[in-house]
Amino acid sequence: MEKISKNILNQVITPREPESYKGNYGKVLIIAGSTQFGGAAIMCSSAAIHSGAGLVTVATTPEKFTAINVKIPEAMTIDYHDKKALLTAIINNQVIAIGPGLGTSNIAKGLVKAVLNNTKTDQTVILDASALTIIAEEKIPLQTTANIILTPHQGEWQRLSNLAITEQIELNNQTNLHELNPDALLVLKKHQSEIYYHDQASKITVGNPGMATGGMGDTLTGIIAGFVGQFGFSLETVQAALFLHSEIGDKLNEKNYVVLPSSIIEKIPKYMAKFSSRDK
Amino acid sequence: MEKISKNILNQVITPREPESYKGNYGKVLIIAGSTQFGGAAIMCSSAAIHSGAGLVTVATTPEKFTAINVKIPEAMTIDYHDKKALLTAIINNQVIAIGPGLGTSNIAKGLVKAVLNNTKTDQTVILDASALTIIAEEKIPLQTTANIILTPHQGEWQRLSNLAITEQIELNNQTNLHELNPDALLVLKKHQSEIYYHDQASKITVGNPGMATGGMGDTLTGIIAGFVGQFGFSLETVQAALFLHSEIGDKLNEKNYVVLPSSIIEKIPKYMAKFSSRDK
Amino acid sequence: MEKISKNILNQVITPREPESYKGNYGKVLIIAGSTQFGGAAIMCSSAAIHSGAGLVTVATTPEKFTAINVKIPEAMTIDYHDKKALLTAIINNQVIAIGPGLGTSNIAKGLVKAVLNNTKTDQTVILDASALTIIAEEKIPLQTTANIILTPHQGEWQRLSNLAITEQIELNNQTNLHELNPDALLVLKKHQSEIYYHDQASKITVGNPGMATGGMGDTLTGIIAGFVGQFGFSLETVQAALFLHSEIGDKLNEKNYVVLPSSIIEKIPKYMAKFSSRDK
Amino acid sequence: MEKISKNILNQVITPREPESYKGNYGKVLIIAGSTQFGGAAIMCSSAAIHSGAGLVTVATTPEKFTAINVKIPEAMTIDYHDKKALLTAIINNQVIAIGPGLGTSNIAKGLVKAVLNNTKTDQTVILDASALTIIAEEKIPLQTTANIILTPHQGEWQRLSNLAITEQIELNNQTNLHELNPDALLVLKKHQSEIYYHDQASKITVGNPGMATGGMGDTLTGIIAGFVGQFGFSLETVQAALFLHSEIGDKLNEKNYVVLPSSIIEKIPKYMAKFSSRDK
Repeated sequence: MEKISKNILNQVITPREPESYKGNYGKVLIIAGSTQFGGAAIMCSSAAIHSGAGLVTVATTPEKFTAINVKIPEAMTIDYHDKKALLTAIINNQVIAIGPGLGTSNIAKGLVKAVLNNTKTDQTVILDASALTIIAEEKIPLQTTANIILTPHQGEWQRLSNLAITEQIELNNQTNLHELNPDALLVLKKHQSEIYYHDQASKITVGNPGMATGGMGDTLTGIIAGFVGQFGFSLETVQAALFLHSEIGDKLNEKNYVVLPSSIIEKIPKYMAKFSSRDK
Repeated sequence: MEKISKNILNQVITPREPESYKGNYGKVLIIAGSTQFGGAAIMCSSAAIHSGAGLVTVATTPEKFTAINVKIPEAMTIDYHDKKALLTAIINNQVIAIGPGLGTSNIAKGLVKAVLNNTKTDQTVILDASALTIIAEEKIPLQTTANIILTPHQGEWQRLSNLAITEQIELNNQTNLHELNPDALLVLKKHQSEIYYHDQASKITVGNPGMATGGMGDTLTGIIAGFVGQFGFSLETVQAALFLHSEIGDKLNEKNYVVLPSSIIEKIPKYMAKFSSRDK
Repeated sequence: MEKISKNILNQVITPREPESYKGNYGKVLIIAGSTQFGGAAIMCSSAAIHSGAGLVTVATTPEKFTAINVKIPEAMTIDYHDKKALLTAIINNQVIAIGPGLGTSNIAKGLVKAVLNNTKTDQTVILDASALTIIAEEKIPLQTTANIILTPHQGEWQRLSNLAITEQIELNNQTNLHELNPDALLVLKKHQSEIYYHDQASKITVGNPGMATGGMGDTLTGIIAGFVGQFGFSLETVQAALFLHSEIGDKLNEKNYVVLPSSIIEKIPKYMAKFSSRDK
Repeated sequence: MEKISKNILNQVITPREPESYKGNYGKVLIIAGSTQFGGAAIMCSSAAIHSGAGLVTVATTPEKFTAINVKIPEAMTIDYHDKKALLTAIINNQVIAIGPGLGTSNIAKGLVKAVLNNTKTDQTVILDASALTIIAEEKIPLQTTANIILTPHQGEWQRLSNLAITEQIELNNQTNLHELNPDALLVLKKHQSEIYYHDQASKITVGNPGMATGGMGDTLTGIIAGFVGQFGFSLETVQAALFLHSEIGDKLNEKNYVVLPSSIIEKIPKYMAKFSSRDK
């Protein structure tokens, strides 16, 4: 399996055009959070903003608006119970990430279906966490014509693919991914996370066990959303997002026994500058 | 078109008189924010306070008070639905900035009219974001005798002036601004933002595309409000505010791929000291 | 008038006894804040905690509890509308500071009277901001047998003493203070703030106009409360608190055009270590 | 009495296995907080997360969810009034810490009983603060088969053990602890805090009076919970947690007259790296 190298960062994180505007860097919708899991929406959308997304809207339960305003004043908010506002947001954003902290309530199920039913070519849908559980449990087909990115950890991938963790080897992963949707991109989160897309398989060798803490996946999803928003959907874009997340984690782990999601998020703009092709 | 030089900072940011009080540095009212756009009110008022405004009051929807208290405990708050309190605040503040995150609801429209109808000479009204959209859509005349500062981006200026973006050249901008109000000052936000006032046109050549992110305009509005509050309304004051915003953005962009509004705000007191004439 | 020297810090900020507990460093009650002025309660109590108060309780309106929990998790909260809880708190705390952001509602008036009626010898009452306005307007006598500290700015002192600002000279201040209460200590906040106590008058020559911003007085009140809580009531304790507040302000002003209250608060523990007699 | 040495940190804080997941580092439930004492729940759970707990859930009153989401987005929340959700959480977490800021209401009493009645072997229950007061007042037997850690200060230990503070000597502490539960581990918080477990008694000689401030105990409880979650229950694990808390406090006290709980929490990941055996 191909090893993703640090060069992917230089390749993807290109200099911005001098005459460009926030509209050039992607409109991103994060559908996330619920009463019990409010932090997931915060970490995901904060990661998207720190990764350079032009405009980020968080669709969540309104009791979380205050926390979002405090932690990420740059984000806009909508109430995901408001069907009309939600549908408008799904149609008007280029990247829709759904799942972090969403839970598996009937409302959450309806949100997943609304995304899959109302997105199309030129949009990208990132399915994470609770959204993956819902898709597995409800056997919801991945029918949208939008680009699809799945970001399961091994247990979620087992539920989605019916592959036991020991069966999650390259060929099986590819085969079962293509059965779900032949054009979907899979980010399989594990020790040395792997990416599957069409007939290509690649993995990172960065990352460390200090990152084994709640919220780390929500953060990765936000970075992927931010990167697709500004650099466009491609295998390379997702590889760069995955690499950056673990690379920052490794830098922080040199001086921190545990690496908190919040500490990774804060460092994204700095490491994007450091590892971009900007000053090369 | 005249290029605004860094000297403008030395010229405007003068040393404070030893025997002076918060009342000497301006009473600023920020009318901003709504359920969906709470962060705009935070960024705008935080920028005003970090820029040195003596006393800042935020008129917003009360569900945002907690986030404001957390992020900027230095600010006071009033409920903009409370007409009497709002009118008192409009009359008692020297600088009124209206628009960031306000939305275009009927309440928002009423707020814009209340500001234009109840301000007068010696006050300064800064019209931004939603307030500009409302003025364009409702064809509200800019009748106040207060100083007027308009801070549209190109799309908002198109709606206000009826000039397509390609038509937004110096002469046209001047002509159409004077039709709106011959004494209004226009800050046209774009790559190399421009300022129009009476027969003068000037532009900055600082700024960078890392600043192309949501909330950057709200932050500029806050800096302008803070500067007018303490240095008085003048072309030079607004030039200095515009310059400082982008100058800090450039400094931060040296080490950060994206420049978040929050990170600019935090650095204002330091850069005001650095670029002021205080130690010269 | 005696000039307070930096030595006061060494004299007052003594090393802590190795075997000592939070109970040894004062129980402080801050009665502050209202819907419109939530930040004042935060800045005042945060300053008290950073100054070393052992236990701080904030009596405020419950809508401010979330902001207080976020900004100062070390503080406890009570609802000041709960008369029984409030009375218990007044009786059980050694230092009671009342006024920052309190407003002048009937509830606020009741709170001021409750403090003056229910405190006694060995307690210290700090009357600030709205509490001073209420006392002036309602002609409430300063009858408590507790130590009394008044912290007006010149306008508030005018209302309390009936001395116009130009009349606020040493002899007049002393005379009119003694009429209010012969044992009260007055901190008159101005350029080169002054302290009056019995027949002694002293002033600081530290401080700078970068500190002329909303919330600075609330912060000073918190430092005084924290100092009296741990070092005991005395002229010297209050002198040290006043000096430290402006000394930190001066250090910050070297690199910051404006000095925000939040930035002073954050630095208190460091400057208390630096200027204490601990390492001498 | 044995003096706990700094070596305990190297011994306990071992390198993490490269191939490991958040599930390997403990599921921790913090039952804490009430209307008046919201900060305690924040400090305790924040300390657990910064100490490396894999997954932390805070059971508290829902009015505190916003503050928790802001301060520790990594934590999940449940409403402790929801008996079913609470019971599920008690059963599904490996470490349950109960007490910080809980108060002694009937609801709090019910929570303490629910924990003692529904935990068993392989789980660890940490009883702190209000939980200890309730156990003393209600004479609740410590009947669970889970590991038990008691973390009283001297006053709380007096209520639990009926030993006056002057009687709290090694032999008495051991005897009375064994009467409560012969397998319980006691952390007696004082100047040079002591740990009792079976027939072993040990103490730390680190720590300083700058740490004598509200919230310090809540923070220690969080560190113990985080350590037991990832390193397993043992005398050594608790010794390391207690040592680390005071060691960080001593480092901070070198430059800070008072050491706030929040400042200790922030430094935990760094000091765990520094004092671990990782780089040895």
